[in-house]
Amino acid sequence: MKKVIVLGAGLVGKPMAIDLAKDFEVTVADISLHRLDKIPDLPNLKKKEADLSDKNTLIQLISDKDIVLNALPGDLGFNALQTVIEQGKNIIDIAFFPEEAAVLDGLAKEKNVTAIMDCGVAPGMSNILIGYVNEKLDSIDNAVIYVGGLPKIRQWPWEYKAVFSPADVIEEYTRPARYVENCQLVIREALSDPEYLEFDGVGTLEAFNSDGLRSLIYTINAPNMKEKTLRFPGHIEKIAVLRASGFFSKDPIEFNGHIIRPLDFTSKLLFPNWELKQGEEDITVMRVEVEGQKDGKKISYRYDLYDSYDVRTKTHSMARTTGYTATMAVRMLAKGLFSEKGLIYPEFIGKHNKCVSFILDGLKERGIEYKETIS
Amino acid sequence: MKKVIVLGAGLVGKPMAIDLAKDFEVTVADISLHRLDKIPDLPNLKKKEADLSDKNTLIQLISDKDIVLNALPGDLGFNALQTVIEQGKNIIDIAFFPEEAAVLDGLAKEKNVTAIMDCGVAPGMSNILIGYVNEKLDSIDNAVIYVGGLPKIRQWPWEYKAVFSPADVIEEYTRPARYVENCQLVIREALSDPEYLEFDGVGTLEAFNSDGLRSLIYTINAPNMKEKTLRFPGHIEKIAVLRASGFFSKDPIEFNGHIIRPLDFTSKLLFPNWELKQGEEDITVMRVEVEGQKDGKKISYRYDLYDSYDVRTKTHSMARTTGYTATMAVRMLAKGLFSEKGLIYPEFIGKHNKCVSFILDGLKERGIEYKETIS
Repeated sequence: MKKVIVLGAGLVGKPMAIDLAKDFEVTVADISLHRLDKIPDLPNLKKKEADLSDKNTLIQLISDKDIVLNALPGDLGFNALQTVIEQGKNIIDIAFFPEEAAVLDGLAKEKNVTAIMDCGVAPGMSNILIGYVNEKLDSIDNAVIYVGGLPKIRQWPWEYKAVFSPADVIEEYTRPARYVENCQLVIREALSDPEYLEFDGVGTLEAFNSDGLRSLIYTINAPNMKEKTLRFPGHIEKIAVLRASGFFSKDPIEFNGHIIRPLDFTSKLLFPNWELKQGEEDITVMRVEVEGQKDGKKISYRYDLYDSYDVRTKTHSMARTTGYTATMAVRMLAKGLFSEKGLIYPEFIGKHNKCVSFILDGLKERGIEYKETIS
Repeated sequence: MKKVIVLGAGLVGKPMAIDLAKDFEVTVADISLHRLDKIPDLPNLKKKEADLSDKNTLIQLISDKDIVLNALPGDLGFNALQTVIEQGKNIIDIAFFPEEAAVLDGLAKEKNVTAIMDCGVAPGMSNILIGYVNEKLDSIDNAVIYVGGLPKIRQWPWEYKAVFSPADVIEEYTRPARYVENCQLVIREALSDPEYLEFDGVGTLEAFNSDGLRSLIYTINAPNMKEKTLRFPGHIEKIAVLRASGFFSKDPIEFNGHIIRPLDFTSKLLFPNWELKQGEEDITVMRVEVEGQKDGKKISYRYDLYDSYDVRTKTHSMARTTGYTATMAVRMLAKGLFSEKGLIYPEFIGKHNKCVSFILDGLKERGIEYKETIS
């Protein structure tokens, strides 16, 4: 039985460790005993309290493992990835850190390591599906990803709960979005171009420009590509009001003799409003549309995902859709279905029919179904 | 020529001093030489730099004056009023201080002083008009005041500029509104019961419950009475979002080791957004509706005000409508048209046909017209 280690026992780390323990000898490591204690005791699952920001601790922990799954917070993610690659271990990464991972490609190849980056739902499955269609078609005209993690119950005023770090959510509302339009890289203001879209079982959602294409900008040859984030209608306007009024400003201001960044204070006030509380159900909605040409004919592929909180295991949908993509990627590596070396973006997995089928089938077994529509 | 002193040379104090100098020997006093310097030099107008929070200074300044006009900031207003009454001087007050002025009624009567309170546009003209109709009718069934000071140019997101202290504006958004309903005093949440209304030359405005009845609750015998504030549609929702999210909380929170009231921080961020800048034009919109019975018949009176910034004299509409009500009240006292003693609420002026006509005519001469509709 192969040995897998999950770094980080947070919202996504926990269900991943449980899922992997069905097929592997799993260790899950975290600095917080409290987080580890929340994970049930299972036959193939070891819990290890450890400071994973300490390089030697990390090296020791991974030394006898076959595959590493990096689910650490963004600020620890990059260093952990680098260490794992240096140690010659294959790794699946969902730490979503801000650093540019591409600099580690040479090292990964030198160490004969497969390091699959950003292997969640979006980025992650969105990339796999675009890579998959890209391989099928002669050319792509247009690719667009719509994705959102939302609360099942809509509560005024925000009708939103943060399924990942609220600070990252605000970052998504302020960081300009990079798109491909007519073969050019263009930059649009975050929150711009709002549009209403209908989703089965959900109703109308509002999509806005966000900076989520990441590696796709460089790896997929398409004249038009964009990613938009989904929220319940009205959320964007409220956020835009705060942004326009200076509440998200990173420029410190003087207040009662203290120097304060408005963004930090706003975050402090908003986070309790956005906190997904124990037992609050969430949903994940994604639509990936790719239009292109095959044998001189226009063809379009569309993938629709609707997933919701698992009431039985009390697992959040965002943890399910993110985490099980990663655990299926671990199985894919373990079975030798994918053997490219270096820094691997998920769209590279999409090139391989077998890999895509394997991951989609595994997700379907776990109740996560991507509905394909070809027209 | 009678002698009048204007206490305070702010937004409203300045045009009042200029207006009064047509008919009186006027002194305008303020702690800020800068504010005084903005007032043009006129034959009958003296400017006096003085700390009006100092009781002796104030006593000396008013000693040879016939009438005092109190336009000080709210925090200085009450003490100044008390001192003026103690000195036996008649006073028109538009300081809109939070203290309960009623406690000074006995003192005013003892000193044989007429002290007219809250003599602006609303409170002020709204009270005068309701007092006027109350005198004409056998009984009132319903009285409602809609009033708002707004920017002429609507700018997203707030479509609002504060024509008086922004802190008082936020207070209006948080302080519960006291109403009379079916002869009972009821309390409604601020911002509640939004409704759309049409106003000639303005378009649709949104009205919400605010705590503006003040003395009318006790002086007018009507089973139903309310005041609502007017804003451009959408403003209320944005404010309600901030309020619901804790941005107007007065409960201090700990932030980076500092103790901060969210309201104070929010104010600091919002005020620059709401600042009415040099040359920015404002409008004042008011509608007063009174329904009642006369000789067994239903009758309703409606007064509509639309006033705008005076481009020629660069005087804000809110300063015009507030200040000229007060300066006409000064003239009314000077001419001996009104001689009741004690604390006088403007609705008491409304009882006297001659006084109401005198004030309305004076306002009309100054371009401020209340259109009466009887049906």
